Amino acid sequence: MDPIRSELTWEPAQLGPDAVRTIRRTSDLRGLFVDAASLEELVRAGDPVVYETYEPSIPEGPGHLRYGLTVLYPGHVGREYFMTRGHFHLRRETAEVYVPLRGRGVLVLQDELGRCRVEDLHPGVVVYVPPGWAHRSVNTGSEPLVFFYVYPADAGHDYETVARSGFRVRVLAQDGHPQVVPVEGP
Amino acid sequence: MDPIRSELTWEPAQLGPDAVRTIRRTSDLRGLFVDAASLEELVRAGDPVVYETYEPSIPEGPGHLRYGLTVLYPGHVGREYFMTRGHFHLRRETAEVYVPLRGRGVLVLQDELGRCRVEDLHPGVVVYVPPGWAHRSVNTGSEPLVFFYVYPADAGHDYETVARSGFRVRVLAQDGHPQVVPVEGP
Repeated sequence: MDPIRSELTWEPAQLGPDAVRTIRRTSDLRGLFVDAASLEELVRAGDPVVYETYEPSIPEGPGHLRYGLTVLYPGHVGREYFMTRGHFHLRRETAEVYVPLRGRGVLVLQDELGRCRVEDLHPGVVVYVPPGWAHRSVNTGSEPLVFFYVYPADAGHDYETVARSGFRVRVLAQDGHPQVVPVEGP
Repeated sequence: MDPIRSELTWEPAQLGPDAVRTIRRTSDLRGLFVDAASLEELVRAGDPVVYETYEPSIPEGPGHLRYGLTVLYPGHVGREYFMTRGHFHLRRETAEVYVPLRGRGVLVLQDELGRCRVEDLHPGVVVYVPPGWAHRSVNTGSEPLVFFYVYPADAGHDYETVARSGFRVRVLAQDGHPQVVPVEGP
């Protein structure tokens, strides 16, 4: 395969004209936020885009790397900040690198033992998600959170484990500031 | 292993206090540039740094990703711009992603059939180096060329093939502008 060169812009964010754009609206994210009634209000009020991703078409074979841009918009569902679904990699032994480009937020990480970590995301940091950590990004700011990511192309995505068990923390607005709150559970 | 968060700064460029810094001076790069006499003059005149890299310590196992910053300084050896040694990955089936952050330059790519490609490097592009392509960066500007890169941690580096066979093109200054010149050879 030939080298690929993509324009990387984030106002508006995109990764060249050939990147595949995926859009997640509030109606795609039922069950994700704790306040289901507020989510349905948002769906009825226009079903806003919560986040979108742009990924060039890279083969999924081993040795390849997939990369892209995520644009996570500012907003709340009830007191909970807009966030991505979050996922483990299907191949648990694969890592990911996050490079924030614009905005402010946090990356919530959780391993299979249930240990949680919360890392700030803003331009000027790089976060390494080691093998075995589920990860979800949260926009705690007032402008779009834009970040570049790279992962092994054969990693695969496991959204089901997170959808079933959830993360053990949620990020809620408290007097306009983000607060990381433990989830009560069994 | 726990997640890693690194500060990513490039004035001065570094990737957190824990990154491993590797420095290449003109005396480390004998045999690389076509004008060996000019190289020796530079070595005698202070042996300047041509480039340095910063890499966090990531395990080399499969599934991990290594990433870092390269700072390639502006300069010439004769008419040839400062450049990195260039390498194939030992595991030819592994790719790499380049994200320029500052400065201007080119990435010279060559596959094992000897096909060459030259891609511009500047903030606002991402270059995907597919499996099987040797790659070398060249600073064609007047300020440091700084880029972020990510590759599979088990890729390995093969500098020998490039040192033995070279790239089929060189990047030379012609009236102050970069010119890609084919290398004559057998």
